[in-house]
Amino acid sequence: MTVAKEFEKSNQKYVDQFAKGDLALPPSRKVAVVICMDARIDPAKALGLEEGDAHVIRNAGGRATDALRSVIISQRLLGTREIVVIHHTDCGMLTFTDESLRKQLVSEADENVDHFAFLPFNDLEKSVVDDVKFFKKNSLVLDVPVSGYVYDVKTGAINKVI
Amino acid sequence: MTVAKEFEKSNQKYVDQFAKGDLALPPSRKVAVVICMDARIDPAKALGLEEGDAHVIRNAGGRATDALRSVIISQRLLGTREIVVIHHTDCGMLTFTDESLRKQLVSEADENVDHFAFLPFNDLEKSVVDDVKFFKKNSLVLDVPVSGYVYDVKTGAINKVI
Repeated sequence: MTVAKEFEKSNQKYVDQFAKGDLALPPSRKVAVVICMDARIDPAKALGLEEGDAHVIRNAGGRATDALRSVIISQRLLGTREIVVIHHTDCGMLTFTDESLRKQLVSEADENVDHFAFLPFNDLEKSVVDDVKFFKKNSLVLDVPVSGYVYDVKTGAINKVI
Repeated sequence: MTVAKEFEKSNQKYVDQFAKGDLALPPSRKVAVVICMDARIDPAKALGLEEGDAHVIRNAGGRATDALRSVIISQRLLGTREIVVIHHTDCGMLTFTDESLRKQLVSEADENVDHFAFLPFNDLEKSVVDDVKFFKKNSLVLDVPVSGYVYDVKTGAINKVI
């Protein structure tokens, strides 16, 4: 059985008790969270988010450049006015380099991906600072509060970096 | 008070009852979910995901092209072997065009963004099919099951498209 089929079964339970059909499209707390796709992180539980509260943008590493399109849409069309960047301990992005992954893809897929930036990092706190600064300096992003945290996968805690 | 400060307070409650400090980095259910950043969607609740289960990649619209970097990392470095694409009713991506948003950014930010693809769509089911096909045809993506759903924000239900 595919996991998709399992999702359909689990979703039925969610539907049976669903009572949030009247929420507005714009996030009520006017915030966009940019956070890693890591399986161990449940942003809603970890941050106290209810349905309707916040845009949650997730990608490998929680990288800002990769989230720019979404943040522009979030701010310009849907009214968010704060950004929270969250990277995390034991992140997969700490385990490789562009060079190593490019070599792997040449070997496994016979594809030259020298043009592809996979956005790994080797300094976790610096990556948070870099991504907060990316948003603060980007002329397409509104001048709003931007803060940066490291989520600790061992404790569930978010620790402020900037 | 910033929402970030509110997150810190909510996070303390999560930490106080946290008991998932030993989860492995690779997702245990070997699946990557690509889903919109929309505030009304809680993927974990809607799909029955526990911490550790799945990569959750979220962007404006849940678009595949924007998720490609993350999916490559998810598959090649962290072992996922299935993709589930989920777009949703009443999506913000149905409300604008590249042309309209580019004009808005020229007007509001004095920036020419003719190079920027914001990836809106005007046919919801077609956008799901397009994005599933994008993954199926991309030579950097492994040949794994890929399915596509529409999430109904009025009912909480996921309805299979492809």
